[in-house]
Amino acid sequence: MGFESAKNNSILSKLATNEEHGENSPYFDGWKAYDSNPFHPLKNPNGVIQMGLAENQLSFDLIEKWIKINPKASICTTEGIKSFKAIANFQDYHGLPEFRRVPIAKFMEKSRGGRVTFDPERVVMAGGATGANETIIFCLANPGEAFLVPSPYYPAFNRDLRWRTGVHLIPIHCESSNNFKITAKAVKEAYENAQRANIKVKGLILTNPSNPLGTTLDRDTLKSLLSFTNQHNIHLVCDEIYAATVFDTPQFVSIAEVLDDNEMNYCNKDLVHIVYSLSKDMGLPGFRIGIVYSFNDAVVNCARKMSSFGLISTQTQHFLAAMLSDEKFVAYFLAESAQRLAKRHKHFTNGLEKVGIKCLKSNAGLFCWMDLRPLLRDYTFDSEISLWRMIINEVKLNVSPGSSFDCQEPGWFRACFANMDDETVDIALARIRRFVGVKTSGDESTPMEKKQQWKRNNLRLSFSKRMYDESVLSPLSSPISHSPLVR
Amino acid sequence: MGFESAKNNSILSKLATNEEHGENSPYFDGWKAYDSNPFHPLKNPNGVIQMGLAENQLSFDLIEKWIKINPKASICTTEGIKSFKAIANFQDYHGLPEFRRVPIAKFMEKSRGGRVTFDPERVVMAGGATGANETIIFCLANPGEAFLVPSPYYPAFNRDLRWRTGVHLIPIHCESSNNFKITAKAVKEAYENAQRANIKVKGLILTNPSNPLGTTLDRDTLKSLLSFTNQHNIHLVCDEIYAATVFDTPQFVSIAEVLDDNEMNYCNKDLVHIVYSLSKDMGLPGFRIGIVYSFNDAVVNCARKMSSFGLISTQTQHFLAAMLSDEKFVAYFLAESAQRLAKRHKHFTNGLEKVGIKCLKSNAGLFCWMDLRPLLRDYTFDSEISLWRMIINEVKLNVSPGSSFDCQEPGWFRACFANMDDETVDIALARIRRFVGVKTSGDESTPMEKKQQWKRNNLRLSFSKRMYDESVLSPLSSPISHSPLVR
Repeated sequence: MGFESAKNNSILSKLATNEEHGENSPYFDGWKAYDSNPFHPLKNPNGVIQMGLAENQLSFDLIEKWIKINPKASICTTEGIKSFKAIANFQDYHGLPEFRRVPIAKFMEKSRGGRVTFDPERVVMAGGATGANETIIFCLANPGEAFLVPSPYYPAFNRDLRWRTGVHLIPIHCESSNNFKITAKAVKEAYENAQRANIKVKGLILTNPSNPLGTTLDRDTLKSLLSFTNQHNIHLVCDEIYAATVFDTPQFVSIAEVLDDNEMNYCNKDLVHIVYSLSKDMGLPGFRIGIVYSFNDAVVNCARKMSSFGLISTQTQHFLAAMLSDEKFVAYFLAESAQRLAKRHKHFTNGLEKVGIKCLKSNAGLFCWMDLRPLLRDYTFDSEISLWRMIINEVKLNVSPGSSFDCQEPGWFRACFANMDDETVDIALARIRRFVGVKTSGDESTPMEKKQQWKRNNLRLSFSKRMYDESVLSPLSSPISHSPLVR
Repeated sequence: MGFESAKNNSILSKLATNEEHGENSPYFDGWKAYDSNPFHPLKNPNGVIQMGLAENQLSFDLIEKWIKINPKASICTTEGIKSFKAIANFQDYHGLPEFRRVPIAKFMEKSRGGRVTFDPERVVMAGGATGANETIIFCLANPGEAFLVPSPYYPAFNRDLRWRTGVHLIPIHCESSNNFKITAKAVKEAYENAQRANIKVKGLILTNPSNPLGTTLDRDTLKSLLSFTNQHNIHLVCDEIYAATVFDTPQFVSIAEVLDDNEMNYCNKDLVHIVYSLSKDMGLPGFRIGIVYSFNDAVVNCARKMSSFGLISTQTQHFLAAMLSDEKFVAYFLAESAQRLAKRHKHFTNGLEKVGIKCLKSNAGLFCWMDLRPLLRDYTFDSEISLWRMIINEVKLNVSPGSSFDCQEPGWFRACFANMDDETVDIALARIRRFVGVKTSGDESTPMEKKQQWKRNNLRLSFSKRMYDESVLSPLSSPISHSPLVR
């Protein structure tokens, strides 16, 4: 292995021989655990339930119904096949005019409550949000330069934003004491730390609504962040891929809306960019619809050229152009999807609350940010990882530990709730209930499960030393890599 | 403009502010000329005919027929919709198992005459050949390192291989005197030049069949190139995206076949990689099917991680999995497509020959490499560009000048013949015929056209000085950029 590795080091690129992609982080380890033993209600009822995947599966029936009454939308039906040649053959990186010119820009408007207008000429396609995020960084920064990013943040940012572009991510630490809000102080601190380390900061990246928090940024915070970036002549990149998952008040405020505010007129629009996608809002991650929307002409031009590397299949563009042009359907879908998310969120968080587990108050996203600090043996990241391994291996739920999101406080976990049916949610809740020992009468747990039960009163772990060590004995193959400024 | 540009230079990346993508090369200028005045038999019969696009439009009827009798292949038909949710939701970067595991590997085998076996586990998806080419470079080389590439070569290599990866391309000059064959001498020369310039060569990139030549590499040449790269411990990347366009003898030899040769057993397979795509062989560029196939495990792993940036829409993967699994259809399609290409090639080259225009003898591809040297006013690239502008602006054919392929000898042009119907080919031939003054009796040309007629005997340009200057007066906005070693 050592020899193999040394051999490859000399003939391959640094990208191929380092671990900067971050795939060996706990986040991906959890996926692997699920993959090797996936839950199925009949075939594998004791398998791992996947709660690590932010998928929106609640409204597929609406899309399927639309497809059935619109066979012409597909180039692979009798009704639509006469477009097959023209569509399969189309390869202009501007994208199909009928897709880009109106439907996608209009959908972006509607998913932001219709309070803002998007110029179709500024819509650039990319291979999913993954491709869109990398594209915008390639446009804005040179290797070695940096972006500030509020933590906790999406673990795959390490791959998407950093891996091939060579930029650094510098976390802005958000704290539970004020509900993980982004403070002016933390932003300033991160920026000044970078300056002291002689790292050129090129911008700030916001995920709004936040993954993993499920919260939205209020107008004042957005204004203050826009002022900050404008003042320092750095970029503000807003990843708004969860825009239409907002299911409760306060309503979503897009950076585009803030830019329209007269009060912010003085800001340089050339420094503002939005990343969007249909993976979360419409639940179509397989279709790879990523969007870069920039207010800067040069960035639009450059990103458009880069879209050659991750264009969306024209078969898919053509289909979505037809579906998103149906304004009545889009309005209905957005309203219904938000309602279903609200209902699911309420059901899941209520279930958790009944067993004493609190979540950060949220109004968006496909997940909850669970506060499991009371369950930690001690207040360390080692303890967090031990608890996490137990949840995966014994409770058989793949949730994601806060450390994989670069959270600076141990004990927080993200649990996704929209990638399963009602029955599976209830099974997950039942497992959690059993785990924390909330059973009013009669003990249905196995001897093994008994060992895992927590004392109800103080919700502290009471599992045997042996088990604790077992979970510690299976260490992470490689911890998530950090920016040069962290720790 | 100057101010705008300076402003962007300070806030954007070098990628966004330099011209390294090569989009202002003559090759793209030709596309723009076509775009502003496209030929249509009824709506715009005097428009520009697009002969700059290597598209394979000759066999769409076969695919359409297959679709009609296989409605289940699509997730957007009544017959296939029950797969919609699972497919639209799938986002594993290994790709749909039913697509990658068998059909695509088998198709690669069949399109190479069934004389070689491909391991499905080594098939990695990418966003078209564009994405596949960039991916393999990101895996193999660091910025500043270089690849040798026989010239003439595909102009967009400057974007695909070089732009974001930061590697250099060093041409291996091929000459008309031996039909543009790659000689050991030229390879050695390019390699040694790089060494003298202190540039680390990481590999050699072959396009086989060649774009723009339409020729295939014989087994001995492949063996000698493999020996060379093996001896120098550098990579051999074979772009085989035109494998199934071989329509005449000699038959196509894949590098995979050469690797199987006992005689080449000593070669390090870890240094060999194939780029493939369905854009040319099946005529589906809009679907963005790019493939990296590597014999090196570490490259397979790394490329797989990179495929997140340009995954193929699962709607398209699912559809193609069904179609390519139909072995009878695939066999029929490949045979019929080759036959149609052969017929079209013969018709077009015969037509050219009748007016005295010779092409390099070829057996593959979707284009001819036309020798228009006798038509040059003098033997310079300026003259080539003048002739080209005349062909575009007066003859209204968008062909591509050799200089855009980095050809070192002026007077060669690539003309694509498979992206149009029979009638359009005949109109193109008629225009060429008129242009070179081959009309046996009766002069149908307009006064303007008369000016453009060439003397039949020596096929030399006889247009007025004024016209010549006109075409020179419209200079290229930016010449194609070159590697640090060229000129």
